[in-house]
Amino acid sequence: MRERAKDPDRHARRMEAKQQIMQERIARAQKEQGVLLVLTGSGKGKSSSGFGMVARALGHDMKVGIVQFIKGAFSTGEDAFFRKLPNVDYHVMGEGYTWDTQNRERDVAAAEDAWNIAAGMLKDDSYDMVLLDELNIALKYEYIDLDRVLDDLQARPEMQHVVVTGRHAPEELIELADTVTEMKVVKHAFKDLGVKAQKGVEL
Amino acid sequence: MRERAKDPDRHARRMEAKQQIMQERIARAQKEQGVLLVLTGSGKGKSSSGFGMVARALGHDMKVGIVQFIKGAFSTGEDAFFRKLPNVDYHVMGEGYTWDTQNRERDVAAAEDAWNIAAGMLKDDSYDMVLLDELNIALKYEYIDLDRVLDDLQARPEMQHVVVTGRHAPEELIELADTVTEMKVVKHAFKDLGVKAQKGVEL
Repeated sequence: MRERAKDPDRHARRMEAKQQIMQERIARAQKEQGVLLVLTGSGKGKSSSGFGMVARALGHDMKVGIVQFIKGAFSTGEDAFFRKLPNVDYHVMGEGYTWDTQNRERDVAAAEDAWNIAAGMLKDDSYDMVLLDELNIALKYEYIDLDRVLDDLQARPEMQHVVVTGRHAPEELIELADTVTEMKVVKHAFKDLGVKAQKGVEL
Repeated sequence: MRERAKDPDRHARRMEAKQQIMQERIARAQKEQGVLLVLTGSGKGKSSSGFGMVARALGHDMKVGIVQFIKGAFSTGEDAFFRKLPNVDYHVMGEGYTWDTQNRERDVAAAEDAWNIAAGMLKDDSYDMVLLDELNIALKYEYIDLDRVLDDLQARPEMQHVVVTGRHAPEELIELADTVTEMKVVKHAFKDLGVKAQKGVEL
């Protein structure tokens, strides 16, 4: 109070500066743009979360592209569910073939084919959201060139949302991402209790 | 090699013990039962993950009950999406009214009503999965009695899966759960970059 009495402009200046900061904050908050989300970590829920975001987007009548880079050992159910829907383009890497780590060349070729499909979606602004499920695994195995992935993600339409899932997200992807969540295991029924992996719930 | 030569039964005994361990493991892994999953932590993706699990269950032609304990400030999209589907019973707590922390009594009444609906699902084995979205928040505010919740969860049909979401999962619920994932914030576009919360993606 005393200080302000000494310098009556001080309060006004401070208020003006504050107002400017607030305006900048509001301007930033108004910035609408596509968001790159990365869901990583070893806990359960990464892919489910990606598919939940797809459902939410569909609830807003958005068009969604999905590329699954690793097909689980058992049918995941999302597949059965989302394929039937309009507004969804669904591609599974190397469909009709099983992974064969003995044959790296074939895996790389399948991963590259899948990335070409993803890259097509990332160039097409009719897709409001693109889910790249388990992409991180394909990157971890170096089946796809990371620089190409980062370039294609960065060059995508401004309003397009992208969700990338899978453990071991590379550091460069985390840097590029807007939002990153790490799923951590607190408890795991399958490992801790020997409960069998079941349809409907991936343990 | 030398040791085995000294005691020819040793290898056989070891193999027998190993086989027994394997059989026990297989028996444990065969144990089919409903699973209680808790998705907590402050990172994004908890509810999305729950809804993704719902989609997966629907892909397996399961019947799903959903009770949303906190309705977001903006339409979440899951709502619009899942309500339309057959095999889904969807209830939102205190629908048509907004939260009013000034009126605790009214919030408690709404939460209790919602729990009664959830409890009905937890007694009905025609529901293969029940999603209790943001239940942890209602528990955190002590809008619902935790002991009642734990009792109802424990008494549910053996094969029924339950997914509970929300930050601040109480310790007792974590103890009861089979699988618990904590979502951790690594990066958050809304906070870090001032990107506005957008339809289709909850930042």
